[in-house]
Amino acid sequence: MFLTKKRLAHIVFESNDKASRTFDLVLLWLIFGSIIVVILDSVASLHLKYGEIFYILELAFTLLFTLEYMLRVWLTSKTLKYVTSFYGIVDLLAILPVYLSFFILNTQLLSVIRALRLLRVIRILKLGRYLSEADFLRESLKASATKIQIFLFSVLTIVLIMGTLMFVVEGPASGFTSIPVAMYWAIVTLTTVGFGDITPQTPFGQLLASLIMLLGYAIIAVPTGIVSSEMAKRRKPEHFEHAKSCTHCGFDHLEKGDKYCRNCGEQIPD
Amino acid sequence: MFLTKKRLAHIVFESNDKASRTFDLVLLWLIFGSIIVVILDSVASLHLKYGEIFYILELAFTLLFTLEYMLRVWLTSKTLKYVTSFYGIVDLLAILPVYLSFFILNTQLLSVIRALRLLRVIRILKLGRYLSEADFLRESLKASATKIQIFLFSVLTIVLIMGTLMFVVEGPASGFTSIPVAMYWAIVTLTTVGFGDITPQTPFGQLLASLIMLLGYAIIAVPTGIVSSEMAKRRKPEHFEHAKSCTHCGFDHLEKGDKYCRNCGEQIPD
Amino acid sequence: MFLTKKRLAHIVFESNDKASRTFDLVLLWLIFGSIIVVILDSVASLHLKYGEIFYILELAFTLLFTLEYMLRVWLTSKTLKYVTSFYGIVDLLAILPVYLSFFILNTQLLSVIRALRLLRVIRILKLGRYLSEADFLRESLKASATKIQIFLFSVLTIVLIMGTLMFVVEGPASGFTSIPVAMYWAIVTLTTVGFGDITPQTPFGQLLASLIMLLGYAIIAVPTGIVSSEMAKRRKPEHFEHAKSCTHCGFDHLEKGDKYCRNCGEQIPD
Amino acid sequence: MFLTKKRLAHIVFESNDKASRTFDLVLLWLIFGSIIVVILDSVASLHLKYGEIFYILELAFTLLFTLEYMLRVWLTSKTLKYVTSFYGIVDLLAILPVYLSFFILNTQLLSVIRALRLLRVIRILKLGRYLSEADFLRESLKASATKIQIFLFSVLTIVLIMGTLMFVVEGPASGFTSIPVAMYWAIVTLTTVGFGDITPQTPFGQLLASLIMLLGYAIIAVPTGIVSSEMAKRRKPEHFEHAKSCTHCGFDHLEKGDKYCRNCGEQIPD
Repeated sequence: MFLTKKRLAHIVFESNDKASRTFDLVLLWLIFGSIIVVILDSVASLHLKYGEIFYILELAFTLLFTLEYMLRVWLTSKTLKYVTSFYGIVDLLAILPVYLSFFILNTQLLSVIRALRLLRVIRILKLGRYLSEADFLRESLKASATKIQIFLFSVLTIVLIMGTLMFVVEGPASGFTSIPVAMYWAIVTLTTVGFGDITPQTPFGQLLASLIMLLGYAIIAVPTGIVSSEMAKRRKPEHFEHAKSCTHCGFDHLEKGDKYCRNCGEQIPD
Repeated sequence: MFLTKKRLAHIVFESNDKASRTFDLVLLWLIFGSIIVVILDSVASLHLKYGEIFYILELAFTLLFTLEYMLRVWLTSKTLKYVTSFYGIVDLLAILPVYLSFFILNTQLLSVIRALRLLRVIRILKLGRYLSEADFLRESLKASATKIQIFLFSVLTIVLIMGTLMFVVEGPASGFTSIPVAMYWAIVTLTTVGFGDITPQTPFGQLLASLIMLLGYAIIAVPTGIVSSEMAKRRKPEHFEHAKSCTHCGFDHLEKGDKYCRNCGEQIPD
Repeated sequence: MFLTKKRLAHIVFESNDKASRTFDLVLLWLIFGSIIVVILDSVASLHLKYGEIFYILELAFTLLFTLEYMLRVWLTSKTLKYVTSFYGIVDLLAILPVYLSFFILNTQLLSVIRALRLLRVIRILKLGRYLSEADFLRESLKASATKIQIFLFSVLTIVLIMGTLMFVVEGPASGFTSIPVAMYWAIVTLTTVGFGDITPQTPFGQLLASLIMLLGYAIIAVPTGIVSSEMAKRRKPEHFEHAKSCTHCGFDHLEKGDKYCRNCGEQIPD
Repeated sequence: MFLTKKRLAHIVFESNDKASRTFDLVLLWLIFGSIIVVILDSVASLHLKYGEIFYILELAFTLLFTLEYMLRVWLTSKTLKYVTSFYGIVDLLAILPVYLSFFILNTQLLSVIRALRLLRVIRILKLGRYLSEADFLRESLKASATKIQIFLFSVLTIVLIMGTLMFVVEGPASGFTSIPVAMYWAIVTLTTVGFGDITPQTPFGQLLASLIMLLGYAIIAVPTGIVSSEMAKRRKPEHFEHAKSCTHCGFDHLEKGDKYCRNCGEQIPD
């Protein structure tokens, strides 16, 4: 049986029958495999031992991903749209580093380009699109996006003011070498991460830091409140759909499964 | 009075009368005692002073747990099912280390096996099964399991991308010796734990770290929102406890304020 | 005007008229003052400079608190009940250290006793009793106490298992010198505090630590969910109190301030 | 076309037409620009290279802000009220440092004054006033202010007691040099920041620290619960946006589904 171009395009771009889902699955494992190789190769001791095997594997993965990229470019009806799309660029970035490594000798630049390969992991998120639960999460976050933006803006304002104050109060002696560094410290503190690489040493600096921490403790509630509230709202409509009202007395608090009205005893048609 | 095998099995496996609850309680204290001994023995100064006493106690506890294990194997009607069950394996692992220590001389391997003894603490959770409140918590967590899985998957994707970026940006000089280590750092940062054993040193690394922290701050809301929302939904059944049941049909899901049974339409006396 | 014993008792023990509230206020400022003195005296440089002044102030505060204690003992109708009550013991502990310091020369023991003086701050919480908002918070916490207990018990079980595993995996070389220390580390990590005084060094230890952190991230939602859920529940009745139902059609979704029924247009009596 | 004083005042103080909004926008960019210059100038390496350019830019920004300040003082009808208002003081503080630097030679004092310039960033928050979402957040926080105050007071009481206990238990040897420092540590720990600059070294200190951390974990839920609960309550008005207003009396709080106006009893067409 020959594969028509249309059938092949269906397999590559859709995921609603067995063949196309198998293609997705194979691709997923290839992505996982290539990521694992990059991760293991970054460990110095493993690179020394198996560096060559990793290199060969990387070439093989690149070849397969190149095949996939060419297939997609050839199969799609809107070539330009795919190539300039988000996933099109991700697909290209996943193969480019290796080819560039043949021409570029600057290893530092190479490693940056190479890191882009990991963006391929975003493809995994594509699968998430079919999960209704993920949809729920995404929509909740989307709906609260404006509030979260305003919240982050307020946080950044606090960080700017607090960072500058700490820079003035503590100074370079305690590690607050500049306002950007002090702002980095303020973010580390406000988010309750607290690395401890930079810490206030003077009594006044510690007092100020305490205020920032208590502030952080008090406002940590805000993003939680936003998302919880959004999730609770998003759940409600679901509940109302099941509700009926009594045709006799108009009582509208009937629940799914009620056979008789709780208010007047009238039988309720199914 | 002689104990029949059936009566003994009831005492060992059930916990709904005085004798069986006493058995559970004695076992619970034995478990607590054996754990305390293991914990205290791990403190170097105490091991030097009381090491021998701890060893004797350990032998005694092992003997008692061996007795219990043999009792359970003998008493159960489905021996194979018990032996291969989760609690059967836990019971075996709790006694095995000491017996193995007579034959194995590799102390490092021994300490690993010995650690398994602590799995016995899981037995305590078994008691939690009888608490309705624990049920409530477990069900809330169970119901939000899918959402939490998707959430953890998203977190891991962020960790992978951020870890790789930090490895490329900061490099081994700042302690980001490999992508796995950088991912470990990303988890430490995103969860707001922030040990500070590895910290970004370059301005760009600190900027990237700040983004990760703010991201962590924004998404810390998600699991909270999921569980809160689930608990709020699940709270309803508790409401039913105050309810009455219909004297005519026995329907027991009536709510306070219902005038007629929802199931049979019978009038309900106030 | 002479103060009768009864009137004096009212002033000391109640707080519902001007005189008694003034007494409470003066006492509150004395407590604040004595705490400030203890705090400032603990700073080495201030102790050197003003040590004598602090000592005199402490004697003065102790004298006043002794007067108050004697007054309470004399005025109360149930002397034994007061002396053995929580606040009675707190009141005694607040004055005892100074008197003991005349007889005891062991300074280390003294400082422990002296610390007890700070328990007097608990008296401040007593005032909180009159704030309805504080009541709301306390009741919400009280109602979720069982759930929080079960939650803490689960957390301790995780801490025990994880601490032991980390002790076995990392060992004394990384600072995990004993199981209690490893459990301390597990609590530091699970609560996302993350001091960084003890950190995993081996790859497997870091993997295990990552699991603990993600677990902590996922279960941080539980106490929040419990309290939020409890607060939301506690708010509801308040809402229902304001609700009325229409006397004509029985529509029961009327809100405070509605002048006409939304369902049938009937006028609603105020 | 000449600008009348009234028209100019409108442009400067309002933001409801094109000209006034352009004025706001230009001002916003000037504020951003001046902040960026201050931030960059604080980096030692940049200060060495571009210090002179930064100084000239700062003079230019100061000149423009001086112009703006004089314009506002001249244009406002209530000069004294503006000058003594919060934004009036902020506007003055933003220009004063540079002028003072011509007379004061004490650089340390200067840097403190200079830091005040950053308060100008608060002006940005002014724009937030027009965003309904920001209003929502602010009102939610405002409404829960009393609860958050009580909560912070309780936290400070815990911090005081725990700090004193840790000072007594650990002492100066572990870095707990005074009660204020120990209280700073308690805040760092309770808020789960955990810098790690001061950590308990004795077994008893670690036990106490564990208790503080678990306490912090349990009460982290409280502010979240407060804000979530407040937001859920406050969500309702947003619901009203979808509502209609009565054609008869103009009452605009009708909800979807209302058949008769709640205010005048007029029937509402579907």
